[in-house]
Amino acid sequence: MKYILKIDTNDSKGLVYKISKVLYENDINIDTNSEFVDTKNNKFFFRVTFIKATLDKSRLINIIKKNLEQEIQITINENKPKNIVVFVTKESHTLGDLLIRNYSKKINANIKAVISNHNDLRELVQKFDIPYHFVDATNESRETHEHKILDILKKYNYEYIVLAKYMRILSDTFVSNIDDNIINIHHSFLPAFIGANPYLQAYQRGVKTIGATSHFVTSNLDEGPIIYQETTKVGHEFSASDMKKEGAKIETLVLSKALDLVFEDKVFIHNNRTIIL
Amino acid sequence: MKYILKIDTNDSKGLVYKISKVLYENDINIDTNSEFVDTKNNKFFFRVTFIKATLDKSRLINIIKKNLEQEIQITINENKPKNIVVFVTKESHTLGDLLIRNYSKKINANIKAVISNHNDLRELVQKFDIPYHFVDATNESRETHEHKILDILKKYNYEYIVLAKYMRILSDTFVSNIDDNIINIHHSFLPAFIGANPYLQAYQRGVKTIGATSHFVTSNLDEGPIIYQETTKVGHEFSASDMKKEGAKIETLVLSKALDLVFEDKVFIHNNRTIIL
Amino acid sequence: MKYILKIDTNDSKGLVYKISKVLYENDINIDTNSEFVDTKNNKFFFRVTFIKATLDKSRLINIIKKNLEQEIQITINENKPKNIVVFVTKESHTLGDLLIRNYSKKINANIKAVISNHNDLRELVQKFDIPYHFVDATNESRETHEHKILDILKKYNYEYIVLAKYMRILSDTFVSNIDDNIINIHHSFLPAFIGANPYLQAYQRGVKTIGATSHFVTSNLDEGPIIYQETTKVGHEFSASDMKKEGAKIETLVLSKALDLVFEDKVFIHNNRTIIL
Amino acid sequence: MKYILKIDTNDSKGLVYKISKVLYENDINIDTNSEFVDTKNNKFFFRVTFIKATLDKSRLINIIKKNLEQEIQITINENKPKNIVVFVTKESHTLGDLLIRNYSKKINANIKAVISNHNDLRELVQKFDIPYHFVDATNESRETHEHKILDILKKYNYEYIVLAKYMRILSDTFVSNIDDNIINIHHSFLPAFIGANPYLQAYQRGVKTIGATSHFVTSNLDEGPIIYQETTKVGHEFSASDMKKEGAKIETLVLSKALDLVFEDKVFIHNNRTIIL
Repeated sequence: MKYILKIDTNDSKGLVYKISKVLYENDINIDTNSEFVDTKNNKFFFRVTFIKATLDKSRLINIIKKNLEQEIQITINENKPKNIVVFVTKESHTLGDLLIRNYSKKINANIKAVISNHNDLRELVQKFDIPYHFVDATNESRETHEHKILDILKKYNYEYIVLAKYMRILSDTFVSNIDDNIINIHHSFLPAFIGANPYLQAYQRGVKTIGATSHFVTSNLDEGPIIYQETTKVGHEFSASDMKKEGAKIETLVLSKALDLVFEDKVFIHNNRTIIL
Repeated sequence: MKYILKIDTNDSKGLVYKISKVLYENDINIDTNSEFVDTKNNKFFFRVTFIKATLDKSRLINIIKKNLEQEIQITINENKPKNIVVFVTKESHTLGDLLIRNYSKKINANIKAVISNHNDLRELVQKFDIPYHFVDATNESRETHEHKILDILKKYNYEYIVLAKYMRILSDTFVSNIDDNIINIHHSFLPAFIGANPYLQAYQRGVKTIGATSHFVTSNLDEGPIIYQETTKVGHEFSASDMKKEGAKIETLVLSKALDLVFEDKVFIHNNRTIIL
Repeated sequence: MKYILKIDTNDSKGLVYKISKVLYENDINIDTNSEFVDTKNNKFFFRVTFIKATLDKSRLINIIKKNLEQEIQITINENKPKNIVVFVTKESHTLGDLLIRNYSKKINANIKAVISNHNDLRELVQKFDIPYHFVDATNESRETHEHKILDILKKYNYEYIVLAKYMRILSDTFVSNIDDNIINIHHSFLPAFIGANPYLQAYQRGVKTIGATSHFVTSNLDEGPIIYQETTKVGHEFSASDMKKEGAKIETLVLSKALDLVFEDKVFIHNNRTIIL
Repeated sequence: MKYILKIDTNDSKGLVYKISKVLYENDINIDTNSEFVDTKNNKFFFRVTFIKATLDKSRLINIIKKNLEQEIQITINENKPKNIVVFVTKESHTLGDLLIRNYSKKINANIKAVISNHNDLRELVQKFDIPYHFVDATNESRETHEHKILDILKKYNYEYIVLAKYMRILSDTFVSNIDDNIINIHHSFLPAFIGANPYLQAYQRGVKTIGATSHFVTSNLDEGPIIYQETTKVGHEFSASDMKKEGAKIETLVLSKALDLVFEDKVFIHNNRTIIL
């Protein structure tokens, strides 16, 4: 089994030495190894992958904790597909990419269910034998609507929620329930064009570059830690609707790359920034 | 001599036909020809280049105006180097690129003078035998400072002012004096990070992409028509100062490309957007 | 109905005038209009889109031909979805993107059938109610194998064949049967890494950039006219298999963009180069 | 003083532990730390930067060597500007960028001299008070010409030679004299368009992407380890000469980035590939 060990702590002298000593003495053969020291914030991030037939994870965690003699955040994960629930509205492009990659086992995840505030994508999702839950938002308060969604979520054992062009804003209450585990694709190169209709905003501003941003969702709209973003060039001949069409291709690419990073346990979060090891 | 003919007018039926008829009947052999119809705003933009031994420009303009029977903006320029004045503060990278390209005749422009609110770049500019004017802003009102600059500008026969990392904001009065003829390089992919210290803003926001934008200067700070912009990727390991260093390379590239477009008379402006033909 | 008029001819004086005169006199209101004069090869390419309730296409073609008084290639197409047949082998990523975009009507095409030398993708294709033809190549001569494919193709009224990671080389005979109408996605930024296993070649050469190229298929392997290509950066930490995984995303994007260009009748071919208007 | 420690060795168990132990016990406070294990080739690359008032470099090297108990390549460099000699022919763009960045102390290097087979760039170089050596190649054998260059080089204490568009091929003998220390900028995205006139080749092939590659020079033309490469898009309207003009901007950017990597001691070479830590 392949394992991923992540440590997040304050920087101090000899951390690499102390951690690698434990691994060495416990006969762990490092496969890949990366660390990042954020000298400005005095933080230390460490990620190691290794292969081991049998492992007592909590024992290893305890030894490391004891040896470092300082407060650390540590996780050891088996490299297994993550269970995810996907939220959508009406657009099919990012969802479609997820469905195809899920079907072809090209993403390190299992889509357990799709939840939507519309019924448009039901047929597509059901082709892949994945449950589709339509939660109508018409004439519903945000609170009630989200409550219904939370009820559905309870049925699933999920680790991440992916907002694949889910066009409703989630409340603080909802987001804080699922901390650091909601990933969104925003259709602009943030922080430009926060909020609704970014392609129209981009057209009106006359930009020569459009883009997309995948980020973790926090209680501040479009302000969460950015995982990945990419841009592409546009010209004066692009209408807002041309930009949207071109942008859809970039959104698909960006979400796909961001999810690969998250689902391989490569992403740390600190101070609203991501560290990717 | 190579000529560039530009027409900017409201769209109406048969414009291409009517213009090309005049050119055909006046024995003008079109070299390159582009047009753009902005159907949304009902606007028509047209650019033709041609080579002609002798040309009575005002006669040709009059014939075209008469034949089109509608109000048009028309210019015919010889393809000659533009006379420019460059404003700088302390950073040398975009200025240096201009100096080298000016010296090597790789830019369609002649730098007539450099004006700065500091003295740091005098030595570099004078290596290339270009006048350098230091206009100290210390203890000066913006009005007085700009007045002194305008006095210097009067000595030069210039067509464009290039702000090559000029770190002071120009007043509305100054800008409106030199309409559509001031080009700036801003150190972010606008409209993200308007204003001061964009790399620090970018660092704090944790973006994975930084960029630069060249735009015409209008009275709204960083809000003028965008000519060209480009981005490059950054990671968590980039400090704000690393971003600035990396960004300098993109700024140089972006300003260089934007100026090539402007100095080849390829750029139209409409509704705060550029059309590049 | 929206129409697309394309003209490809030798350059000569007054072409724009003569064509626009016909359109003007036939009450055709131009929507978009682009042309390109290849002065080096003395060629003229022209594309116009317009909307018209009723149109006698052959009459208009004849008038234009008569007025130009020189040999021209001219087509007028209604802007209808193209009928296509997709060839695949085992990889699902570009096919999957086509299936999703076909299903969601986000591509200007109808997939009539999928043909493969393997059976792996049958289940995926049939989810979308599209015929899947498995033509086994085992123990078959290329000639016999292609003969069987041609027999299947006869059943379909198709305008283009799309090779969506079809990993067999088509014979000259096959290609010449379907001239200019086969589009391939090659997994490298051609002309680098022609032929098999380009990601392994890229790894071994130690490149810092990989890419993909979509091109028309001619009888010379990977030598046909390029429609679109794009690159992305890689580092020393990418194995050949990481490059392949990353490359799959670029392949999907590049084929998607290339097909949009072709299916909107934007592409001309001359001297093994594409002109995209 | 800031130091850079680089280790290159065969991978074996506990390397990070053993190295970090030495550093820890010698009271060295790590500033940045990166390593890469090439599992395919069983190689280990390690780079650490640290700040230390006084350091006995050879003592530290010996302790590390002793503790690792295996053959290693190790260097400890002070982070001082590298001394370089620049070779040019006639084009000014990459040289100009180097001169400006050298003058402004924006590159971690000192240009000690410029050597050219032409006299065209003498005036530019001498503006910056840098010696310019014209070594005429007319009517000279390659051997004699290179011999004259080597004689000049003897006068300078240089660590790297930068070929900033030096358009002559260096002999094996010359290259092997200056192992791993010659850096070239090639005007294509290698391995596409090896050899002369890559922009003409690119035009003829009808590519939609051009690029530039910076690499170490080995005895095989354009086949050395690649440090950095970048591409940019072109269209059918680009002549070979337009591509050259656009390409010049990318060449300047790519060489600039590659030299930053090399002069910060970030680059390892193994199996004709670079590892950049």
